[in-house]
Amino acid sequence: MKPIKVGLLGLGTVGTGVVRIIEGHQEDLQRQIGSPIEVAQILVQNKSKSRDVAVDSDKLTESPWDIINNPEIDVIVEVMGGVEETKEYLLSALNQGKHIVTANKDLMAIHGPEILLKAAENGCDVFYEASVAGGIPIIRALVEGFSSDRITKIMGIVNGTTNYILSKMSQEGAAYAEVLKEAQDLGYAEADPTSDVEGLDAARKMTILSTLGFHANVSLGDVNAKGISEVSKEDILYGKKLGYEVKLLGIAENHDGHIAVSVQPTMVKNSHPLSSVNGVFNAVYIYGEAVGETMFYGPGAGGLPTATSIVADLVAVVRNLKLGVNGRTALAPYKEKKLKTDEQITSKNFILLHVEDKAGVLAQITQIFAQHEVSLESVLQHPNANNPKAEIIIITHDAIQASIKKVLKQFESMDVIHAIKSVYRVEG
Amino acid sequence: MKPIKVGLLGLGTVGTGVVRIIEGHQEDLQRQIGSPIEVAQILVQNKSKSRDVAVDSDKLTESPWDIINNPEIDVIVEVMGGVEETKEYLLSALNQGKHIVTANKDLMAIHGPEILLKAAENGCDVFYEASVAGGIPIIRALVEGFSSDRITKIMGIVNGTTNYILSKMSQEGAAYAEVLKEAQDLGYAEADPTSDVEGLDAARKMTILSTLGFHANVSLGDVNAKGISEVSKEDILYGKKLGYEVKLLGIAENHDGHIAVSVQPTMVKNSHPLSSVNGVFNAVYIYGEAVGETMFYGPGAGGLPTATSIVADLVAVVRNLKLGVNGRTALAPYKEKKLKTDEQITSKNFILLHVEDKAGVLAQITQIFAQHEVSLESVLQHPNANNPKAEIIIITHDAIQASIKKVLKQFESMDVIHAIKSVYRVEG
Repeated sequence: MKPIKVGLLGLGTVGTGVVRIIEGHQEDLQRQIGSPIEVAQILVQNKSKSRDVAVDSDKLTESPWDIINNPEIDVIVEVMGGVEETKEYLLSALNQGKHIVTANKDLMAIHGPEILLKAAENGCDVFYEASVAGGIPIIRALVEGFSSDRITKIMGIVNGTTNYILSKMSQEGAAYAEVLKEAQDLGYAEADPTSDVEGLDAARKMTILSTLGFHANVSLGDVNAKGISEVSKEDILYGKKLGYEVKLLGIAENHDGHIAVSVQPTMVKNSHPLSSVNGVFNAVYIYGEAVGETMFYGPGAGGLPTATSIVADLVAVVRNLKLGVNGRTALAPYKEKKLKTDEQITSKNFILLHVEDKAGVLAQITQIFAQHEVSLESVLQHPNANNPKAEIIIITHDAIQASIKKVLKQFESMDVIHAIKSVYRVEG
Repeated sequence: MKPIKVGLLGLGTVGTGVVRIIEGHQEDLQRQIGSPIEVAQILVQNKSKSRDVAVDSDKLTESPWDIINNPEIDVIVEVMGGVEETKEYLLSALNQGKHIVTANKDLMAIHGPEILLKAAENGCDVFYEASVAGGIPIIRALVEGFSSDRITKIMGIVNGTTNYILSKMSQEGAAYAEVLKEAQDLGYAEADPTSDVEGLDAARKMTILSTLGFHANVSLGDVNAKGISEVSKEDILYGKKLGYEVKLLGIAENHDGHIAVSVQPTMVKNSHPLSSVNGVFNAVYIYGEAVGETMFYGPGAGGLPTATSIVADLVAVVRNLKLGVNGRTALAPYKEKKLKTDEQITSKNFILLHVEDKAGVLAQITQIFAQHEVSLESVLQHPNANNPKAEIIIITHDAIQASIKKVLKQFESMDVIHAIKSVYRVEG
C-alpha cells in the first residue's frame, strides 16, 4: 500500500514528539487510516545538529521549499512557529493541494480566515487542534461535540506558563518576579516572557476558541487582554483569605449574538474546579444553552501531548483523503460579529482600596457604589496598626462594567482614597 | 431544499429534549448541515397523553413499524430504551438503509457489535455519543481526539444516581437507605434502583468506553461490577478521616494488550479531581501513553444535555449524508481481547478490620501481608472504649489482586479477626 507522506516543518520538542508517535504507534495508525504513514521530509535550521530522535539524515532539509514543492508530500505538519513567513509557506503548500496540520496559534489567530479560505479554494484540510490547550481535544469538542448547541460562554486556563507562575505564587507565597525567574530557569517560561505573561498567548487561543464556538469571525484585536505582571503576592493572599485563587482566565461570552472576549487575572472561587487547576495544566469550561456546563482538562503543552493532537489531526486528514472529502468538512463563521459595549458586559468584581482610616470613609465609598447602582456582596475593612491607612476589600454583585469604571474614576479623585490597589474580575 | 427527516422512537425526557433542540436551534442546524431538519414521525406509547412539548398530533404513532417502514425517514433517533425488541427495530431500520442515533447504553453494551456490523453491511451510520456520560462528548474524544494515542486507562464516574447518593451520604453523614429513598422521591433514582446501585449501568458504559478506547471487543460479561449498596456511612467517615471520598468508579486498564475492566466503590484521594465531582455530574479520566492525563466533566444525564449529544450525532450523520460517506467512518475493534488475571491486576487497597483488642494482633496481621508480599502504606489502629474489639484500617501500596485475596482468605480463618468490615480499591 502506498504510504501517506508527511512533510514536517520543524523538529523542536513538538516536532520530535510527532516523529516519535508516528514511529511508535505505526501499527495502530495503519489500522486507523488503512495505509502506512511516513515522515518523508523534515525542515530543520541546522542539518548537522545532533537530535533527540533518530532520523535519517537524507530526510532533513534546511529549505522549506524543498518540502512545499515536493510533489510526493501529501500533508504538511507545521510546528516551526512564526507568522508572516510561515503563512507564505502554508498558502503556497495549499496552492499545491497539500493539506495542513498546524500547532501555530499565533498564525491561526491572526491569519486563520485567510488560510482557511485558501484551503477551501483548493479542496484542502487545515486542522489545528494542537493550537489550543495542547493535548486536550477542545476544538473537536466545540466543533463536533457541541455542533447542536448554542455556546454562551467559554472560560479557561489556556496558558501553562502563567498558570505555573500563579500556582507557585499561591502555594509558596512568593513574589511574581522571583517565580518568573524560576520558571525561566526550568524552561517553563521564555527568556522574553512577554507573550505569555501579558496574556497575548492566551488572547490568541481565545480568538480561535470564540471564533469556533460563536460562529463569528472574532479577531485578535477584539480580545481585551491583561496579563499577570501586576499580580502581587498580597492580592493572592487577600484572595485566599476570602476563598479565591487568582487565575489568568480567558473568558468569551455570547448573549444573543453580542460577544465579549477577554483575558485577565481573575479571582476564582475555590469551590469552582478551575481554581484547583495547577501548574502547567490547562482546563476549559464550555457552557451551552442545552448542555449546561462542561469542563475539559489536560496537559496544555509538552512535546508528546501536543503531538497527540497533531497526529490525531493527521489521522483525520488521511481519513478524509481516503473518503475523498478533504476541504469539505470545515464550517466558515456565518454570524455577524457584534461586540459588547462596556454597558453590556457584567461581572462580579474584587476591589482592594487603601483609604484614610477615619470615620465616615466607608459610608462615602459605599455611597458611590449605590449612586452607580452597583450592589455589594461583601465589604471587608482591615485596619492596619502600623499605618494611618486602612485596607478595604469590596466584592460586588454582578455589575455593569461601565458602572464599575465610573465608580473607579470617582475614587481616583477622592482624597480619602489613597490608592486603588487592585481590581479583579470574580468568577465561580 | 429537501429537509432531512428524522423518526423519533420515544418522547420521554430525552425525546422531548431532542424535539426542543431541533426546533429551537433550527437556523444554526441548517447552517451546520446545509438543509432543514425535521422530526417527521414520533413513536409514543399513548397518542392521547398530554405532552410537555407541542408536537403535531399527526406525527405521533403507537407503532414503531410505521416509522421503520416509512421510506421518507432518513434517520432514526432511538430514545425509547429496551434491549431485545429495540434491537429488532434498529436492525430492521438498518436493513432499510436508515441511519441510527441512539442513547441506549444497554443495547450498545450488549448488542453493539451486531448492530455495528449490520450498519456496515448497509452503508449506514450508527452513532451513540449520548449512551455514555450524557452531555459530555467522551466518545468523540476517545475515537477522534485520541486516535493517535494508546489509551492505558479510562477511569470515571459514569452513573449520576450513585454519585448523587454517595455525595449526599458524604455531605450529610446519612445512611445509604435513607438517601436512596430521597433520591427516589426526587426522581434521581428509579423505583427499582438495581441497575444503577449495583453498578450494572456503569458496567454497560465501561463496556462501551473500553471497547472504543482499547480497540478490542470488551463484552459486558468481562466487567467485574460491584455496586454501592454495601457502602456504609462508617466507611465514608473513615475514608474522610484519611483523606478519601468514596466514589463508584468504572476503571478500565490496558497494559500491553492485557485488559481489566471493573466497576466498584473506590476510595479516591481528595487531591484527585474525581473526588470533588458531586451530585449527578459525570467525569471521565483518560490516560494515554503520549498525552498523559486528561479529564472530561459535565452533566451525565438530563433531557437537554443528553439531547445535545444526540443532535450532535444527528449533525454528524447528515454531514456524512451530504458527503456520501455514511457507514464508512466507523472503525471496528481490531485487537485480540486478552483479559488480565488476578495475578496481573494491581491496585492500592483500603481494608477495615474488626479485631480482638489485645497485644500481638497487629503483628500477626502485618505478618500475613508480609508473607504475601503486600507492602503497607499506612496502618491505623482505633481502640474502641465501649467494645472489646479494635478497629484497624490498613492502606496497602500497589498490590497484586490475587495476593490480596489470599490475605483476606487467611484473615477469615483467624479467631482474633472478628470481621473484615470492608475492602475498597484506592485511587488518586
